[in-house]
Amino acid sequence: MRKIAVLGSTGSIGTQTLCVVREQGDLKVAGLAAGSNIELLEAQIREFRPEIAAVWTQEAARELRVKTADCNVKIVSGMEGLLELAVCPQTDLLVTAIVGMLGIRPTIAAIKAGKDIALANKETLVTAGHLIMPLAEKYHCSILPVDSEHSAIFQSLNGENGNKIDKILLTASGGPFRGKCRKDLLHIRPEDALKHPNWSMGRKITIDSATLVNKGLEVMEAKWLFGTDLDRIQVVVHPQSVIHSMVQYEDGAVIAQLGTPDMRLPIQYALYYPKRRPLSGRRLDFFELAGLTFEKPDLLTFPGLRLAFDAMRRGGNIPTAFNAANESAVDKFLNGKINFLDIPEIIEAYMENCRFLENPSVDEILDTEKAAYEFIESRW
Amino acid sequence: MRKIAVLGSTGSIGTQTLCVVREQGDLKVAGLAAGSNIELLEAQIREFRPEIAAVWTQEAARELRVKTADCNVKIVSGMEGLLELAVCPQTDLLVTAIVGMLGIRPTIAAIKAGKDIALANKETLVTAGHLIMPLAEKYHCSILPVDSEHSAIFQSLNGENGNKIDKILLTASGGPFRGKCRKDLLHIRPEDALKHPNWSMGRKITIDSATLVNKGLEVMEAKWLFGTDLDRIQVVVHPQSVIHSMVQYEDGAVIAQLGTPDMRLPIQYALYYPKRRPLSGRRLDFFELAGLTFEKPDLLTFPGLRLAFDAMRRGGNIPTAFNAANESAVDKFLNGKINFLDIPEIIEAYMENCRFLENPSVDEILDTEKAAYEFIESRW
Repeated sequence: MRKIAVLGSTGSIGTQTLCVVREQGDLKVAGLAAGSNIELLEAQIREFRPEIAAVWTQEAARELRVKTADCNVKIVSGMEGLLELAVCPQTDLLVTAIVGMLGIRPTIAAIKAGKDIALANKETLVTAGHLIMPLAEKYHCSILPVDSEHSAIFQSLNGENGNKIDKILLTASGGPFRGKCRKDLLHIRPEDALKHPNWSMGRKITIDSATLVNKGLEVMEAKWLFGTDLDRIQVVVHPQSVIHSMVQYEDGAVIAQLGTPDMRLPIQYALYYPKRRPLSGRRLDFFELAGLTFEKPDLLTFPGLRLAFDAMRRGGNIPTAFNAANESAVDKFLNGKINFLDIPEIIEAYMENCRFLENPSVDEILDTEKAAYEFIESRW
Repeated sequence: MRKIAVLGSTGSIGTQTLCVVREQGDLKVAGLAAGSNIELLEAQIREFRPEIAAVWTQEAARELRVKTADCNVKIVSGMEGLLELAVCPQTDLLVTAIVGMLGIRPTIAAIKAGKDIALANKETLVTAGHLIMPLAEKYHCSILPVDSEHSAIFQSLNGENGNKIDKILLTASGGPFRGKCRKDLLHIRPEDALKHPNWSMGRKITIDSATLVNKGLEVMEAKWLFGTDLDRIQVVVHPQSVIHSMVQYEDGAVIAQLGTPDMRLPIQYALYYPKRRPLSGRRLDFFELAGLTFEKPDLLTFPGLRLAFDAMRRGGNIPTAFNAANESAVDKFLNGKINFLDIPEIIEAYMENCRFLENPSVDEILDTEKAAYEFIESRW
């Protein structure tokens, strides 16, 4: 029986992971970590009976200990708690569905303890890919993508051992503002940007999807995950989101994965890889589909994607600068403090102003993040 | 160095196979067989220097012996010649690009001699799948599909060892008469039917594509090749022919292979499987593509496809009856003796009138074919 721990168990990916566990019935949940949703975490502890559960603050931990006194579960807190959970001997796979740079240290600890990683935390590879990938190789750990696009690429690479990749074709819905020009985006309000055409996701990632910054982060992740040159990653806007991504090989053949927008599929694929399992829910009905179309991304209106390629080309701590500046800017946008079009400008400004570090350590990555917040706070 | 023999080397698939050999430069051609195009076969012998070459008639063999007297090649003829070529010890893979039921005996002989088969001959599995597939298993031979759709399915099955197939989605262009109704097809002339929208192919197969009989034959082949229930094979009309076919797994994920219409790709894939090699030529450009669309096949206007499913469900020699009656009817249509709409009627008539044999031998398969020609000749 495969034993898993879930970082971020009360979030969107976390709850869907537990949904897969519930449906399949043959996975053991040994650890759960959540931020502040103590009620849901308590319910999850009662249902899945983990050995260990982590929350962020000590107060929350105290509260949870009282609520779950009858459950025989160890409650831990803070980064120390996350690290304890990440290496707990009862697990062999860690699902990192936590949001933000918080995910980096527990992931590194888990790899060093020989755990496989089902990776749903974007920041891990974006900011620390140069540390994580060699480490995973050294400790013979698999990094299994959970993101829909990366899972599609991963599925399209299946059985192609050693066959040369010509191009990774990373599809993008184009977000709610596809087809608009800069002028149209001047007075966008947060509630307009929060309407994603195909996927229902958290607030921050929905804004990232509207700016194409999300696709930029995915390009960075793809580069690390699949060891591809940046020039071989092409973003293809595909508004229907039916094709989840593709790989073109050196003979010209393109292998693609298609499906409905259901995150349980890539989650389940990562949990059972290379086996597939039945999954309930809707199937693609080709006879119901409108035409599938493809466009070039509009880098003029959505410079966030161009900046992501720039950041990745420069390397070092610049992808971290890109990501942290975006986080801070999106937060300001959601709070009505800046305009939609300011987001890429803020990212670019910090990318140009931050101190370049070629091979940053985890501490330096976190310093770059902190400096981004300070820089932006002082100017916008 | 892989050593191959090509049955039907002067035809469309045969010449493209040799084109791949020429481009790759690391395959040895040990045998070539052609029907009547002695000039081209001579040129192929001079270029590829096989040990053995086969033609159909003794006169042709005599003529070729004179022409290639300086070449150190053994020239053989007739079915005996094909059989000798099929088992020649210098080969390890036989490309069966010959057209018609002629291909069955050499394929069986090659399998018994332990050769792998790159299968481009439709009739082999359609009429004798019940003999061929168990034989290939017994002798541990691979049957590698060369047809574009089956290669796409084969590529989509790559690395999915044991994962359960929900559905094979066999795509079809719909042919030149897609969207027409029966009335529109009353006065179709052969030259109208010979215009295929996406692929350039031989005359007979182009008519088969217009009647959807070709897709019916492909359904039968897919059933044998991939061991799938007929109910799990769904024909999807996809006029752009960009997606060459797809497989849906039990988790709902659909894996597809896409490409330009270039038969060298599936040929090369079969010759080097599981390795891919560079292939010159155009690549799919998603930004140039019009939308990809999907439709249900119109079984009322194109009953040939429905009849193929019927034939396969009845089994035994009925698929042979379907195929032979179609061959005879297409021949009559191309010679202006019957109407386009008569083709499926003739097929149905013979399917109903032929003597049912549950588990036909090769001789009985060939008898069923012969009887089809006689039956149709005497009535139309």
